[in-house]
Order: sequence, then structure tokens, then C-alpha cells
Amino acid sequence: MKNRTLINELKNKINEEVTIAGWMHRIRNLGKVAFLLLRDRTGMVQCVLNPNEIEMIKDLQVESVLKITGKVVETPKGDSVEIQATAIEIVSPVKEMIPVEINKDEIDAHMETIIDHRPVTIRHPKQQALFKVQAGILNAFRNAMVDEGFTEFRSPVLMSAPSESGASVFEVKYYGDKAFLAQSPQVYKQIMVGAFERAFTVTPVFRAEKHNTTRHLMEITQMDGEMGFIENYDEVLEVIESVVRKILESIGEKNKTELDLWQATLPKLPEGRFPKVKVKEALKIIEERTGRSSNREELDLDPEDEREIAKWALEKYNSDFLWLLNFKKDKNFYTWNNPEDNDESLSFDLECRGLEWLSGTHRIHDYEKLLENMKKQGLSLEHYEHYLEAFKYGIPSEAGFSLGLERMTQQIFELKNIREATLFPSDLDRIAGQRISRVKKEA
Amino acid sequence: MKNRTLINELKNKINEEVTIAGWMHRIRNLGKVAFLLLRDRTGMVQCVLNPNEIEMIKDLQVESVLKITGKVVETPKGDSVEIQATAIEIVSPVKEMIPVEINKDEIDAHMETIIDHRPVTIRHPKQQALFKVQAGILNAFRNAMVDEGFTEFRSPVLMSAPSESGASVFEVKYYGDKAFLAQSPQVYKQIMVGAFERAFTVTPVFRAEKHNTTRHLMEITQMDGEMGFIENYDEVLEVIESVVRKILESIGEKNKTELDLWQATLPKLPEGRFPKVKVKEALKIIEERTGRSSNREELDLDPEDEREIAKWALEKYNSDFLWLLNFKKDKNFYTWNNPEDNDESLSFDLECRGLEWLSGTHRIHDYEKLLENMKKQGLSLEHYEHYLEAFKYGIPSEAGFSLGLERMTQQIFELKNIREATLFPSDLDRIAGQRISRVKKEA
Repeated sequence: MKNRTLINELKNKINEEVTIAGWMHRIRNLGKVAFLLLRDRTGMVQCVLNPNEIEMIKDLQVESVLKITGKVVETPKGDSVEIQATAIEIVSPVKEMIPVEINKDEIDAHMETIIDHRPVTIRHPKQQALFKVQAGILNAFRNAMVDEGFTEFRSPVLMSAPSESGASVFEVKYYGDKAFLAQSPQVYKQIMVGAFERAFTVTPVFRAEKHNTTRHLMEITQMDGEMGFIENYDEVLEVIESVVRKILESIGEKNKTELDLWQATLPKLPEGRFPKVKVKEALKIIEERTGRSSNREELDLDPEDEREIAKWALEKYNSDFLWLLNFKKDKNFYTWNNPEDNDESLSFDLECRGLEWLSGTHRIHDYEKLLENMKKQGLSLEHYEHYLEAFKYGIPSEAGFSLGLERMTQQIFELKNIREATLFPSDLDRIAGQRISRVKKEA
Repeated sequence: MKNRTLINELKNKINEEVTIAGWMHRIRNLGKVAFLLLRDRTGMVQCVLNPNEIEMIKDLQVESVLKITGKVVETPKGDSVEIQATAIEIVSPVKEMIPVEINKDEIDAHMETIIDHRPVTIRHPKQQALFKVQAGILNAFRNAMVDEGFTEFRSPVLMSAPSESGASVFEVKYYGDKAFLAQSPQVYKQIMVGAFERAFTVTPVFRAEKHNTTRHLMEITQMDGEMGFIENYDEVLEVIESVVRKILESIGEKNKTELDLWQATLPKLPEGRFPKVKVKEALKIIEERTGRSSNREELDLDPEDEREIAKWALEKYNSDFLWLLNFKKDKNFYTWNNPEDNDESLSFDLECRGLEWLSGTHRIHDYEKLLENMKKQGLSLEHYEHYLEAFKYGIPSEAGFSLGLERMTQQIFELKNIREATLFPSDLDRIAGQRISRVKKEA
């Protein structure tokens, strides 16, 4: 639309005639006059309609798409503007009531209903806000990674073998063969270190989990980085801290409106480096504070532990962030265990307000050691030709990490369920947000 | 590595002692002295080794990872620097000759071999260059789209029904059900128009093609945009022209080194708007120029036609770009056919040097019309609940487009095969770059 004025530009056009376009968000019809709230991507404005115009739209339901021409006037209070409509054009009439009301401050519906009707509910300002911030996170992550010298690459989704041993994998019919959906970009980002030293990717990953939880989905978006030429993994932590700082600064600045709609407070960043504690020590601190024994089967924290150690970090370092270091020995083939402590792997999690945001490990770059581990796990090496070739021909000492986009969005807004931060979630009951129908299930 | 100097910083450290780290790219051993070319992510430098140091590395093959400490000196000619090595540390020894030589100006191997050994061949500066430019395209595309007011979103890969009628689709075992890999983000980007008006996504898409060509792969990366509130699709063409211009400007500036390595010339942009021609007219122009009849079964151009009309555009408008408009009637359910010409759809392709870069159409936003088309095609509507809901409740007139990342990379470098522009291609013989082994095929 060549002559369209966006709603957030109206304040600069007082007393001018303009044409705006958008959705009929709400209407209050008083008979001789009606007040129609029109919504576009930049905001909402009240339009005052005369009886002829009311007649035109009287059978329309909210969410009808309209073009409205009229004069921009200041509201009596002078704190905003409204439109004295002179012409209305119906772009897309809506004839039925929408299934979920989206013109109140809150959507009064259960999460499942919000997802069932995503095409409508995504139009609610608070729902839009979640995904605008998600877009902001993506953008800030990539910019920060480029600033740190990382090169972006596209990691394949179709793989010839499962990318992680043990984890559940989706199988794809691939002509006469089988392919698998990537559970992580691990293999490829490690290969990329051989060329770019620092590589990152934003990619969908897939886990065929058999249970429904509030924290897991079958398809999520991972933001992954891998960094070569390190002497120890602390060098990677330093880079991650800078990236996380930049993401929060960026969305704090560019998405203030969206965060304010939810009254979301961004996590508190410490002054300098983020505090760090080894899992072994963390368990002792928890024991001292709560009396709960620090004896766990393995070096790991349960959700209660995570909340407690988060409190400790906030009290002691005034930080919502905390590094947990050196978890139990890793089951995967590519992580170094700690040569100085037989219980530990060289691993790290970034916790925010007691929830995991990111995890990573110091990788094995020694070809012989990698081969030995893979054989021990009974992996069929012919599926790892590419991976092994990278290490056979020289990869520096390196570490990498992975951040979940949906989980990060969820935690910034303190949402209860990861599904709330996912446009079209796939789980045991849904594929891309649509319910798996009974008809289909029985077929 | 805290004390590491990157190779491109050496020129500022003449006469200082530094530590550099990277791969042994080449070595010339003259007995009493050896010249070792070390490569890191920023470039290469010659290191002069003494007999002790030669002894240390004499059994190593190229691509071994080394740390070298030494003094930075100007070369005799004074046009660059070299390192007088005083200490070497072996980070990752390489014991076998690499399978493909990567330390000459060109890799002397067939494309298939380059892909077979991607983990090594990606280290060659010219191979790296392709994928650095690819990263540059991605980055520039997204920034340009954000500038134009588009909101990024994540489009799901797992779908409950094929996303395009007719086209081949990959099937995924989804618990007791079936899921499908997205052939395009079409459905989702159209839904997003209802919230954001302008939406874009960068996403892998999958086509289960049954043939091997130089232009098709099973998994590619699509850069997709969708734009609401248009009066005609020319408004979208204008936005795309601005985006394409920004991509070329951005990589021309940031990736000059990489483009120069290939002696790649960026396509010529016209002064103002890109030239446009309807397919119907294009065929007549081709007839006039070549004598070939403009009678085709349908309104479409074959590759020979595309090359001819590209010549015409270059001669007449001094432009490597050309819009081809209004192809034959579309078979999909979501495209408007031209109400003024029964042979045509409201469709557009952006051609560059005679090859398609991008295609798009003006979409049907009328719910009743969409429903009618979908029924006519025999689509099972219960799989399109979300899609239909979006249109039932008000979508403005809109158009959208799709650009292939690998194809764009291929065409900028004028590569013969799309596989050359894909890190880990999937086709009839490979999954993610790895050959499908005979063993597996017979199983």
C-alpha cells in the first residue's frame, strides 16, 4: 500500500488526512457513533465512525482487515491521537467470532488452547512480544558471535547416523535407506573448527523423547558455538559471558516495550566475570546452607539444588548467573574427563536464576583417544568418516557450547512451560502445533 | 590461548617476540634451515626453523597443529613479515599424508573427492572463501529484512502433512504416527503475516527428488519472506530489490578477499529499479532475436530462453538482474491467477545472469477461495487447521518469496554444481556429504 500510514507515525500527522490499515481489534458501537480500535504491526489507534460507516461494518467480527481513511486528531486529553473516519474499505471480512478472545489485556485461555489457535492467539500483543524478543535473541546472538570472530555455517539436519549415542533419534525413510534427524550439530561444528577455528550455527535439532515434560520438545532451535586453540575451557566461558551480556543488552534496549508488557525483568548481570563453582563444591555449599547431604550418586544437581545454589550466587555475587563446573564423567565419546579428578568431566553449565541456559564441554581433540572411545561405545565408525577425518588431520584443543532458543525465551519471561515460548511445538500430542488427530492415530 | 597473536596482527609487531598457532600448511626443508608456512584463520606466515626445530617436526605431515614462538622480522623485500622461530610446541600431530593436497593455489581433485574429504578440503583458502561468503549472504539478508520491517521467526521442520501438494516429501516415523519434513515454510510464513505483517525465516527445507541434477539437493537452506498489505506484488519486488542490493553491497565490502580469490565479479545492478518483463513478452523478444517460435506449451522459459533474455536485459538495461513476471497458471492452491489474463498466474522470478535466484507469488488471502482451491485439489483439510484458521480470521492481501542460499552462493561464484556451494550435501548417493555405503544399501 503506497499511501499507507503506520499507526506509530500518526502522532506526527495531526490534522492531516491519512489512510491506515490493520485489524479490527475491538469495537464499541453506541448507535450514532462507534469507536473502533484498529491494530497494525506498530500499534493501535481508536477510529471514530459515523452511522454510514457503522452500517458498512455492522456484520463484521473482530479481526476483519480494514483500510480506514480519515483525519488525525488529538484526543481531548491531548495524550494521544485518534482518527475521524471518512471512508472504510473492507480488505478481509471476518464472519465468525474468533475462537479465543485476543482483545483483552490477557488471553483468558489455557496454554493448550493458545497453541490450538496459534494463528489467532499470536496476534495478541503479549504473544507477539514473546516472539519478537525471540527474534531479538537470535539476532543479538549471531551479531555477538560474529564480533567474537566466529564464522556462521549451516549444519545439516539429515544425517547418516544418529549424532549422539544413547539419545533417541527420529528415523527418516531415505529412498532405500535410512537417514536420521540431527540431535545436535556437534559433529559438524567440530569439523568446522579445522577451517574457521571458531564456528557457530543456529539450527533445529530433534529428540525423540518418550515423555511429555514442561522442559522438553521434539524439535527445538539450538544456538551452538565451537572454539579452537584454547588452553582451558575458561577461555570459552569468557567469550560466552560477553555474548550473553550483549544479548541481554540488545533486547533490553530494542525490546523494552515487549519486556514491559510482561513486566519481565532481565536477569541480573554481575559486574565483572560471572561467578563459578565446581559441582563438587556447590553440593557442599548446599549442605552447609540446608543440611541436605552432599552425597549424590553422581556429580550432578537436582532442581532443588539448582535453586539453592542460585540463591547463594545472588547473595554472594549479586548475580543471577552462575557457572557450574565439572559435572559427573560424561557418557559421550567427545568430552575430556578431568585428568586431575576421576569423578569429573571438563564440563560447564551456565545457570540463570537456578535454571540451565547453556551447557558445554572441553572436547577431545586427540585422534587416537577419540577412536578408542568410539570403539569402546560400539559406534559403527563408517558412519563417522567425516568426523574422524577432521581429527586425523589436525584439530586444535577446543571446547563448545549450546544454548536453546526456546528455553532462553521461556526463562527470560519466566514462563512455566517451554511450549509457551514455541510457535508451533511438536510433542507426543502435536506435530508443529497441530494435534495429532484420533483418526490418524487409529489408522 | 591467552598470549596468542593472530597472523594478520604480526605486521604491527615487528621485532617483537610472539606466539602464533595454526596448521602446518606447507614445509620446505633445506636441511640446515626449513621454511614452514603456518596457517591460522586470519592468514599465513612463513616461519624460519633451525636444525633443532626441524628435528622436532621432521616426522610430521602437513595439517599438524603447532604453536610457534619467535621473533617477527620484515622479509628482505620488506613487503611482508616472517617469524624467526625459537620454540615449537606440537598441539596435534598428523602422522599420515592428507588424502587431498590443500596447499596449492587450487585443489587438484574432482568435486566428488572434495566432498568426500570435506573436513580437510574445507581448510583450503578457496573452499573457505565460498562458505565465508555464504555466511556473509545470510547475515546481510537478515539485516536487510529487519531494516525493511520484517520479523524473524522459526518455521518448524516437522510437519503433520506435506507442505506442498504434488511435490515429493520425506516421511518421518513419529511414534505411532507419521510426520513429514517441511518442503517449504509457506504455511507458517503466511500465518505469521496475521501477526507481524512482514515475516521472514531462514530454514532448511527438504525435497525427496528422485533424480540427480546439478541444481537440486534433498536438503537446502531457504531464505523466505512474506509481506502483507500490498496492493500489487510490485511492492514486494521493490523490497526484494533493496534486499538484494544490500546483500551484494555487504559481501562486496566485507568479503572482497574471498571474492578476489575466485576472481568472482558480483552481478551488475541497474541504476534504479530492476528491469521487468512478462513471460509472454519475453518469449516474443526471444523470437525476434533468435527466430525461435514463442509458442510454448505453457508460459515458461527453458534454460536457453533464460540465457537469451538475460543477454537482452544486459544490452538494454545494463543489468545482470531481470524480473520475469506472470508465468503459467500455478498448480498450487495459494497463488492468485491473473484475473486479466487466463493463461497467467501472479508470479515472479528474479533472474540473475540467466538463472533463477528467487521466486514468489501474490497469495490468495480470501478464505472462501482458498477453501475452494484446497477442496478441488483433494487436500485433507484437517491437516491444514492452523493454515485455514489464519485466513478465516483475517489476513490482508499479501505476497511472498523464497531465495535458495546454496543456489545464490553457487551463482555468485559461477560454480557448475550446487553441491560445490554446500558443505555437506544430501542427494541420491550421499547423506550429509557421506556416501551411502553399499553395505547399508544392501541391508
